[in-house]
Amino acid sequence: MQALSLSPPLLTSPPRSLRRKSSNTFRAPRMDRHARISSQFAPLLHRDLALELASLMESRLGSDLLPSSVPDNVRSFQNQSGTSFGSLDIRYGAPGSSVDFLLESWLHCKVPTGAIDITTLLVYQNDSTDAPHFNLEFIQAGPTSLVLLLDLIPRRDLSFCPDYIDTFYQGTNVDKPRQDLEKLPQVVPYRSPSLYIRSIWSPTAILVSINCGEGGATKMEEIIKGTVASAAKEVLGIWLERCFGTGTGTEMGEEEREYMIRRDRVVKSKSIEIDLSANLPRLFDPDLANRVIAEIQKACASHTWCVMSSAQLDTRLLFHITLAATRRKYY
Amino acid sequence: MQALSLSPPLLTSPPRSLRRKSSNTFRAPRMDRHARISSQFAPLLHRDLALELASLMESRLGSDLLPSSVPDNVRSFQNQSGTSFGSLDIRYGAPGSSVDFLLESWLHCKVPTGAIDITTLLVYQNDSTDAPHFNLEFIQAGPTSLVLLLDLIPRRDLSFCPDYIDTFYQGTNVDKPRQDLEKLPQVVPYRSPSLYIRSIWSPTAILVSINCGEGGATKMEEIIKGTVASAAKEVLGIWLERCFGTGTGTEMGEEEREYMIRRDRVVKSKSIEIDLSANLPRLFDPDLANRVIAEIQKACASHTWCVMSSAQLDTRLLFHITLAATRRKYY
Repeated sequence: MQALSLSPPLLTSPPRSLRRKSSNTFRAPRMDRHARISSQFAPLLHRDLALELASLMESRLGSDLLPSSVPDNVRSFQNQSGTSFGSLDIRYGAPGSSVDFLLESWLHCKVPTGAIDITTLLVYQNDSTDAPHFNLEFIQAGPTSLVLLLDLIPRRDLSFCPDYIDTFYQGTNVDKPRQDLEKLPQVVPYRSPSLYIRSIWSPTAILVSINCGEGGATKMEEIIKGTVASAAKEVLGIWLERCFGTGTGTEMGEEEREYMIRRDRVVKSKSIEIDLSANLPRLFDPDLANRVIAEIQKACASHTWCVMSSAQLDTRLLFHITLAATRRKYY
Repeated sequence: MQALSLSPPLLTSPPRSLRRKSSNTFRAPRMDRHARISSQFAPLLHRDLALELASLMESRLGSDLLPSSVPDNVRSFQNQSGTSFGSLDIRYGAPGSSVDFLLESWLHCKVPTGAIDITTLLVYQNDSTDAPHFNLEFIQAGPTSLVLLLDLIPRRDLSFCPDYIDTFYQGTNVDKPRQDLEKLPQVVPYRSPSLYIRSIWSPTAILVSINCGEGGATKMEEIIKGTVASAAKEVLGIWLERCFGTGTGTEMGEEEREYMIRRDRVVKSKSIEIDLSANLPRLFDPDLANRVIAEIQKACASHTWCVMSSAQLDTRLLFHITLAATRRKYY
C-alpha cells in the first residue's frame, strides 16, 4: 500500500519552541514500529496514517520520551485461536518533560460480523502545564465504515474558563478541520453510548462516523487519504505547536493545579474503565486482556489515585488524600 | 390555531415532592400571558407550544415565584417602524425557593430575508441546590426551518463529577428524547458559532436544526406537534420532577458551593454577552435593546459579579472578592 504523503503547513518545519529540543533529540525507533506493526497486521489505510502520525509525533517529542515501558508480551499479543491480535506501547515522559505518557494501541479483532480494527494514539501531559492532551482513535468495522475520534482534550472546566477556550481552541482555529470533515455527505456525528465519555471532549472535537455504503470502499480510501488525513495532521500540528511543552499552558495557582491534577485522574481512570476495561475482555482472553489493562492502569495511576465521588470530597480532604496516596497505592 | 395537547406521562400528575407545595400555590397568570402574547404576535406553532410549557412550568413552580420584576416597556416593546417586537418577563424566586429566576422572552424580528421568531424559556436555580438549570429556545426563520436548543444545563464540571452525570442525566433517561428527535431525516445537529456556548451544554442536550425544505411547512407542523412537543414536555417533566427544588441536588461542601456559584455567574454572564448583548442591538433600536438587556443583566447579576479570567484567580482571592462584591456592584 502506498505511503500517505503527510506534509501539512504546520508540520513542514519544526515550530520554534521545538527546534531547541531537536539538537539533543533521542531518535524514535520509527522503523522498528513500522516493521513490527506491518509484520503483525494486514495493510489498512487508517493504520498507515496512524503509523505516520505516531512516528512524526515521536520524532518531534524526541528526548521528552523515555524508552518503552511495557513487556514484550504486551507490545505484541494475540488470543489463543490467533484470530485477534494487538500491540500496546507506552512511553513515559522524561524528567522535566511536560509529557506524562504516550500511549499507542493497535488492535485487530475477529467479531461475529467480520473484524474490527481499532487504533489509538494518546499523549497525556503532566501538571507542569494545563495545555490539552492529544487524542486520536480510529475504529474501523470493514472497508466502508470508520469512526474517528480526534481531539485536544481540555484539562479545565471550560464553562468556567472562557480564556482557556480562547487560547487553545478559538485562537488555534482547530474547529476548521472539524467543519471540513462534517461537510462530507458520508459523515454523521458519532455519539458515545457513555454520557461520561461525551463529557470529556472539547467543543471542537471531531467525533464522526464515516459510512460509504455498499461498494464504497474506494470512496472511503479517498476520504481517509484526503479529508481525514488533513484533519489528523492539522490537529496534531496544532497540538505540537501550541499545546506540547511546559511553556504553552496558562498560569495556574497552586489550588488550580491541585484541581487539575485530580480532574486529570478522574478523566483517565473513567475513560479506561468505560473503554478498555469493559471491552478488551470481550475481544481477548481474560488473562491477556487483564495483562494489557494492567499496563494502561499503571500509566494512568502513575500519580496513584482512587476514583470516588467528587461530591463527597472536601477540597482540603482531597489534598491530604493526594499526599497519602503517594505512599500507599490504592488505585 | 388549535392548542397542542400536552399530557406526557411525567406531567399528568404532580410529582410527590411538588404536591406539598400545591396547597398554597400562587396561581400563575396563565390567561394573562396567553392573552398578552396572542394579541402581540401572529400565531406560530412553536410559540403555542412554548406558551403551554411556560404556563405549565409557572403553575407548578407556584409560590416559588415572585411577581414579574420588569417594567411595562420591557414586558412589551417594539421598534420605531413597528416591524420588530418582543416581550421579556423575569420572575425572581421567592425567599426559600431554589429558583433564582424564570426568564421568558418572545421576539419577532423583521430581517432582510423575511422574519425570525425567537422564543426562550429559562429557569436558573440558586445555590441551595446544584441541580441543573432548565433551558428551552426556539429560533424559527420561516415555516420550514427551526432550531431547537433544549437542555438541563449542568452546574458542575462533568469530567470531574461522574456521579452528577449518573444522577441527572443517566438516571433520568433524558437522552431518550434527543435520540428520538435525531432519528428524523429532517434533523441535523446545530452547532453554535461560539465555542463557549458549545461548552455549557450537557451530554444529552438537544441542539438541532430542523429543515423541511421547500413546501415542507406541513411536515414542520407535524414534527413540532409530534416529536418536538414530546421532547420538550419530557425534558421539562424531568426537570420539574428531578431537578427543581432544594431537595433534589447532591451534597456539597462549602468550597464546592463557592465554586458552583462562581461557575454559574460566568455561565450566565458569558451567555448573555454572546447571545443577547451581541444580537439584540442588531434586531432592535439601540435604546430599546439596552433597556431589555439591562433587565436581563440585573437578573444575572443578582449576586453581583465581574467576569474575569478564572486562570488569573486564586481560590482564596475569589472568596474575598465574592464577599466584597455583596456590597459593591461592579458587574
